[in-house]
Amino acid sequence: MPAGKAVIGQSGGPTAVINKSLVGFIKEALKADFKEILGAKHGLQGMLNEDFVDLSKLNESQLYGIGRTPAAALGSVRKKPSEKDIEKLVSIFEKENIRNFYYIGGNDSAETAYLVAEGARSSGYEMKAFHIPKTIDNDLLETDHSPGYGSAARFVAHAFQGDDADTRSLKGIKINVLMGRHAGWLTAASTLGKATEEDGPHLVYVPEKIFDIESFKKEVKEVYDSLGRCLVAVSEGVHNENGEYFLQTYANETGSGLAGKKDSHGNIQLSGSGALGDTLVNIISENIEGARVRADTFGYLQRSFLADVSEVDAEEAERVGQHAVIASKEKDSGSVILKRQLSEEYYCEVDTVELNKVAKNTKNMPKEFLDDKKPYVTNDFFEYAMPLTGGIEPKTQIFV
Amino acid sequence: MPAGKAVIGQSGGPTAVINKSLVGFIKEALKADFKEILGAKHGLQGMLNEDFVDLSKLNESQLYGIGRTPAAALGSVRKKPSEKDIEKLVSIFEKENIRNFYYIGGNDSAETAYLVAEGARSSGYEMKAFHIPKTIDNDLLETDHSPGYGSAARFVAHAFQGDDADTRSLKGIKINVLMGRHAGWLTAASTLGKATEEDGPHLVYVPEKIFDIESFKKEVKEVYDSLGRCLVAVSEGVHNENGEYFLQTYANETGSGLAGKKDSHGNIQLSGSGALGDTLVNIISENIEGARVRADTFGYLQRSFLADVSEVDAEEAERVGQHAVIASKEKDSGSVILKRQLSEEYYCEVDTVELNKVAKNTKNMPKEFLDDKKPYVTNDFFEYAMPLTGGIEPKTQIFV
Repeated sequence: MPAGKAVIGQSGGPTAVINKSLVGFIKEALKADFKEILGAKHGLQGMLNEDFVDLSKLNESQLYGIGRTPAAALGSVRKKPSEKDIEKLVSIFEKENIRNFYYIGGNDSAETAYLVAEGARSSGYEMKAFHIPKTIDNDLLETDHSPGYGSAARFVAHAFQGDDADTRSLKGIKINVLMGRHAGWLTAASTLGKATEEDGPHLVYVPEKIFDIESFKKEVKEVYDSLGRCLVAVSEGVHNENGEYFLQTYANETGSGLAGKKDSHGNIQLSGSGALGDTLVNIISENIEGARVRADTFGYLQRSFLADVSEVDAEEAERVGQHAVIASKEKDSGSVILKRQLSEEYYCEVDTVELNKVAKNTKNMPKEFLDDKKPYVTNDFFEYAMPLTGGIEPKTQIFV
Repeated sequence: MPAGKAVIGQSGGPTAVINKSLVGFIKEALKADFKEILGAKHGLQGMLNEDFVDLSKLNESQLYGIGRTPAAALGSVRKKPSEKDIEKLVSIFEKENIRNFYYIGGNDSAETAYLVAEGARSSGYEMKAFHIPKTIDNDLLETDHSPGYGSAARFVAHAFQGDDADTRSLKGIKINVLMGRHAGWLTAASTLGKATEEDGPHLVYVPEKIFDIESFKKEVKEVYDSLGRCLVAVSEGVHNENGEYFLQTYANETGSGLAGKKDSHGNIQLSGSGALGDTLVNIISENIEGARVRADTFGYLQRSFLADVSEVDAEEAERVGQHAVIASKEKDSGSVILKRQLSEEYYCEVDTVELNKVAKNTKNMPKEFLDDKKPYVTNDFFEYAMPLTGGIEPKTQIFV
């Protein structure tokens, strides 16, 4: 393949360590023989508008600063490229002699890289296309886990430790709503700071299981009657057997005037709104007379909190960015994955798989990570997830 | 005064470092000649029920663990003692030979300590009563600032740094609702991580100023039109010129079916609900066509997040607990305060003032900390608050 320029973009929802992948990429790219190293502002959008920045002139201090700043330093975008977009992209790459395409993001980004690779191939333009994984949702196929998840999981586990102490101080029922439309990985992470059975969360509701409001009411009441308090973790995407979000069906059935924003199709907006938590509070308050019931929706803090990053996650995020450059010397395309090693100390190797193995689909929590009798996780999940957080020190509860 | 036992309790909303004050108290109390050192479970409630634990047998590791666990280790309570309660308390103290009363909390707790001191005096029972300050709201009189505020401020400042990076990545309008019914100290702390004018938050709404929804709409639109995004900090307690909460008057005027919980008097619950944020999102969405508008309500995380504590705050919290014991050797009663020293490096001395100077009333942000032209804070506030957080490292924004 002729020598050419490299371009990188970031896509989808931010994470606390996505910029570590960018930094890992830049450091390795500087060692390669790219004619230029371009960053595209706001991902595909910047590529289509030829809105590029030069990434080869950053000093060490800038690279350090970018690496510890959450969210996409180059700007992000939520955009599925049309066939026309891909044609236009390839023609821009050709004009600019861009021969190396790197895209940091989730499964949609893997699909974009796949479409770029296919588009270039069918135009007879020689180029390489690589996907660098990130998502707090941890729902990417093939990789052991997704960079970004470990830090979000650490934040959530710490938040629940604090909230458990809070609900012990002033007893009541506390419902926390976590990000996750389709997979419960982040909600499950709420359990990672528990030291004893009595610690919260006591109940964990994930999208992998059907959500039934009557069971929910019964289960919360049981814990409350037994402990005098109850701490609950709920994924925003909990749904019925038809896959319809609880908040949506509840609003339809009851005509409840939710304060949550609806889009032009009348669909409930799940993130950036406290509507699900508030609705569950109202339902539980009616069901358990006199209880102090509160909800928090953790919201965007989960994906952008810079002061509680997992060191393991940060290191791996940097390594997948770096590996994309290394792999592109040997291969034409691929998605970087993490492979957990069977060793005494936790360690992941990096490798790549074909792009279409990662594109589009999502990885739910497997059955063995979910308790089959109660809304809770198993010890297998604990052993899987704990190392990714960098470790959660237990808190001390002695008196109450 | 005859030698006797000491009792300590914790009251009101938890903070991340309230247990540091408990630990500081215990360590110093072990050096004093108290006959016993008792902890009361759930504050006054535990004292009235004689539900005490022995605090003299904790080992170093337990004290360390308690100190790093947020929220009230002994349990907290929200209880204003009646005259009868005080009579009963004093009779219990007399029966148990408790001669030293310490109460960790906000202005209500200072009042409780005052009532205990007065009650004992009028019964002719010799005893000492001290208040140890804590509140994330930072609204206590006399003290330079309240232990608990620095850590909450640090969490809020870091959260806004991340959220600013997030709203740069995927542009839009983001409204964050912060704790604070009467004072805007915590909301103002959202600005402490800013490095440039362009960093968010761009607008800061505190209860010290009248909240006008039309001005709010106009100000948000101005920033959005100029930067293409807008990050807003709003205190939960924003209100009209009659002191009526915005959320309450808006619900009354529009009949808006807020998902937020109402109490038996029809009053809106401000904390533990996303209703204010969601309402402001709806209003702004209608006003600015096509904008991506989101809200987060930071909720209880602000007061109980254990993984981002201010070292300065933690050290001071321990010191005020310790000083209560020291001061009680010389004086009969008092509230511990922090006095900022005029030195090159930030430092606070500890001292005490009379209990009734701290009881009941709250300290709002002074005029010189609030910009008189726009909804924002001044540099004087920045200089006052920054040292309390232990320092906030600026983030790096280069490309977007």
